[in-house]
Amino acid sequence: MSPAVDFAANESGPETDAATLDRVLAAAATAATALRSTSGAIRAEWLRAMAAAVDADRAELLDIAVAETRLPAAALDGEINRTVFQLEHLAERAESPTLLDVVVDEADPEYPVAPRPRLVRALQPVGPVLVFTASNFPFAFSVAGNDTASALAAGCPVVVKANPGHVRLSVRTAEVVAAALARAGAPDGTFAHLVGVKAGVAALRDPRVKACGFTGSVRGGRALFDIASSRPEPIPFYGELGSLNPVVVTPAAAAARAADIAAGFAASITGRGGQLCTKPGVLFAPTGSGIGAATAEAVQPAPPADLLTDRIADAFTAGTRRLAEIPGATVLAGVDTTRPTVVSLPASVLTGSDLELEECFGPAAVVVEYDDPADLSELLRRIGPSLTATVHAEPDDPVAAALADQLVVSAGRVIWNGWPTGVSVSRAMQHGGPYPATTSPGFSSIGADSVNRWLRPVTFQNWPDEMLPTSVREALAG
Amino acid sequence: MSPAVDFAANESGPETDAATLDRVLAAAATAATALRSTSGAIRAEWLRAMAAAVDADRAELLDIAVAETRLPAAALDGEINRTVFQLEHLAERAESPTLLDVVVDEADPEYPVAPRPRLVRALQPVGPVLVFTASNFPFAFSVAGNDTASALAAGCPVVVKANPGHVRLSVRTAEVVAAALARAGAPDGTFAHLVGVKAGVAALRDPRVKACGFTGSVRGGRALFDIASSRPEPIPFYGELGSLNPVVVTPAAAAARAADIAAGFAASITGRGGQLCTKPGVLFAPTGSGIGAATAEAVQPAPPADLLTDRIADAFTAGTRRLAEIPGATVLAGVDTTRPTVVSLPASVLTGSDLELEECFGPAAVVVEYDDPADLSELLRRIGPSLTATVHAEPDDPVAAALADQLVVSAGRVIWNGWPTGVSVSRAMQHGGPYPATTSPGFSSIGADSVNRWLRPVTFQNWPDEMLPTSVREALAG
Repeated sequence: MSPAVDFAANESGPETDAATLDRVLAAAATAATALRSTSGAIRAEWLRAMAAAVDADRAELLDIAVAETRLPAAALDGEINRTVFQLEHLAERAESPTLLDVVVDEADPEYPVAPRPRLVRALQPVGPVLVFTASNFPFAFSVAGNDTASALAAGCPVVVKANPGHVRLSVRTAEVVAAALARAGAPDGTFAHLVGVKAGVAALRDPRVKACGFTGSVRGGRALFDIASSRPEPIPFYGELGSLNPVVVTPAAAAARAADIAAGFAASITGRGGQLCTKPGVLFAPTGSGIGAATAEAVQPAPPADLLTDRIADAFTAGTRRLAEIPGATVLAGVDTTRPTVVSLPASVLTGSDLELEECFGPAAVVVEYDDPADLSELLRRIGPSLTATVHAEPDDPVAAALADQLVVSAGRVIWNGWPTGVSVSRAMQHGGPYPATTSPGFSSIGADSVNRWLRPVTFQNWPDEMLPTSVREALAG
Repeated sequence: MSPAVDFAANESGPETDAATLDRVLAAAATAATALRSTSGAIRAEWLRAMAAAVDADRAELLDIAVAETRLPAAALDGEINRTVFQLEHLAERAESPTLLDVVVDEADPEYPVAPRPRLVRALQPVGPVLVFTASNFPFAFSVAGNDTASALAAGCPVVVKANPGHVRLSVRTAEVVAAALARAGAPDGTFAHLVGVKAGVAALRDPRVKACGFTGSVRGGRALFDIASSRPEPIPFYGELGSLNPVVVTPAAAAARAADIAAGFAASITGRGGQLCTKPGVLFAPTGSGIGAATAEAVQPAPPADLLTDRIADAFTAGTRRLAEIPGATVLAGVDTTRPTVVSLPASVLTGSDLELEECFGPAAVVVEYDDPADLSELLRRIGPSLTATVHAEPDDPVAAALADQLVVSAGRVIWNGWPTGVSVSRAMQHGGPYPATTSPGFSSIGADSVNRWLRPVTFQNWPDEMLPTSVREALAG
């Protein structure tokens, strides 16, 4: 179902043309009707077929990914495991009788205010979903990734726009996915793949697309959010954008285990070349704790990172230079290279100016040294909302207690004595947060409940049971 | 907590000034912190105190409403009952252990892909909520109405902007609500009241406001949605806008009970002067069924409706004129008056042109006569999404069966052999729908789950139980 592409003709990746896009969206709109009447158990089979197909073609996909993305083979192989697990995790969600959150209020002639008719409320799929994929997870947040899997689990056809950083892999993965879905009996139009910004934006503006998922930068995500919101019919845009992911180290924690914290921090900022949306970009440590220097020492042996694309590498080195040029900054490691970069700042630089720290995508972090824990609240406010907020503290730590509420308000996930990288695919996982972490703080883009982005409630009033959608009848029976 | 107002000075309603607005929003931001740590049981007490206060001051509030809104006293009195019940319904939701939808995934070193830390996910309040109130329900969707009640139930401070159609009533209701909340121990800033468009828009642009609820017109709602979406930090905007609420009468139903259907339709379009967001604005009947003429006959004795405001009355008569001027239209009742208006159109007028029927707020409806049930699908498509879609059909009716999926796709509530007006306040009620019915199809603005608009998930990773917010600890304890 992916458009024909000819890499020999254009190594940078050919664009899906307008006629192909129109066919793709017409097929998705038709499939939306068919998918609404499938049971979740059937869609679970499709997702498991996708998982098996990706696993079966692992060697070939891995080769393409290694050639195209510059990520290490071991990391990519682990990511395939994660992708397969995500598909299985969402298959379980698809077949769960709780997927549609069915609520029945029986008719009640004595109900307060006015007699109540019989009401059956159930979640229903929103229709065709457009997915803009991530550069940093060419499997887990790309063509066969979580947005695709969760939309299919919900019963929505999916149109995926290839990430420009791995078009070849996207095209091949799309072929694998499309073939698996076809073999499993999914209707035509259940899944399709686009190449090119122009096609992606045209799809986003198309009235047949009813919701959009995105993982990427604040700039790109905001531009697409603005398009989605300014359509004649605005649609929900679930964008996971950018994040500084602050870490607070209390004086008690620094006194008890500065070396351990520095080691953990170094590992967390350098893992996968720092190219993670949950990478901790700023750490607040007591002045004189030595955590900045120890972190720098721990990252120094690392060679220059082979970042995902030239553009990302250029943006990274420019970003490290901007950090180094902040008045008062001390370079502890890196800068002007793709080697891991650690820059320290006294807290007064943040509190005494209108400096806005920006996410520096790659292996870089800022250590902000504070003298007075009472300043931490204002420092966190200056950082703004993130996907995650972490505190390293000791038991009954008054500094942590004073900050807890603020951490909760400013993030989708709060972490105690740990690190934000390594996001578990689990029901209780929230991967989201207030803007600019996401454009939709009420939803998660990871975990079983990521399906909720693609569902909306419908109430059936006095509706005969035999007229209910198959999926609702099954949920009522089950 | 409502700003000082002087009606003698300006009968059209004085505006809240900028300094007052700033104080109001600062207090709301402070209260947000306090409210996050209240238990749902405490907030349930506040809501019950509000319900009791509105009920206790019923006579005075009713007098003001009768003088200001032109709605009949009996309708307003019934609406107070509904308002009191809504507050109690949401009090129950606030104190339910399921409010925060707490999910716990215990730590699992053997978890697939990577060891899982302990994850506790819980919904948390989003922060200060701004509410733009409705003209047509001066109690139930106004100052003490469902948006206010649901936001307080969720643990969010509320700032209400008065509807220009009933400023006096809004100011007095706000005093009653504020006093009840203060007596019940709610912190300062829990509730406040604004007057004036300028103050409302300034509040919507203010970074201290984290979400907005709105009930009103497509034009007004879209303008505010655009402001909310284009803020530096966009916020969720839950707008309930406009709706044609189509009704399909199948040939079998028309043959079996045309007179009953006409009587029900007449009652549904004239109730409360037709000023309901769920008023059925268009009914599809078989040509020659006589339903249009019978509906016209049933509404003819009604006197001119005393619509809510002069502006609404002017818009209504202009709207009826536009309906009458549609080429091919036959006026069956009304037009150019606030008397109930019924206009019939042959289906070919809709299918053969680019005519877009618009909601005509007030006691008016269009009867579209079709020759071929096979045209119904295209006719419904031309109407677009609505809050509700209704079908009158007989058992095993093939025409209804063929349309069922399309009705579900185009509405938040589908109704079998009934009428969309009279929305039950109940857990299984969905009052919402795809744009332009609302700006947020995933949510309901009526019923227990309307609280979900004001909550967002947060995951606590390895977080010590004693550090969890009070509300989450209580939910875990059961």
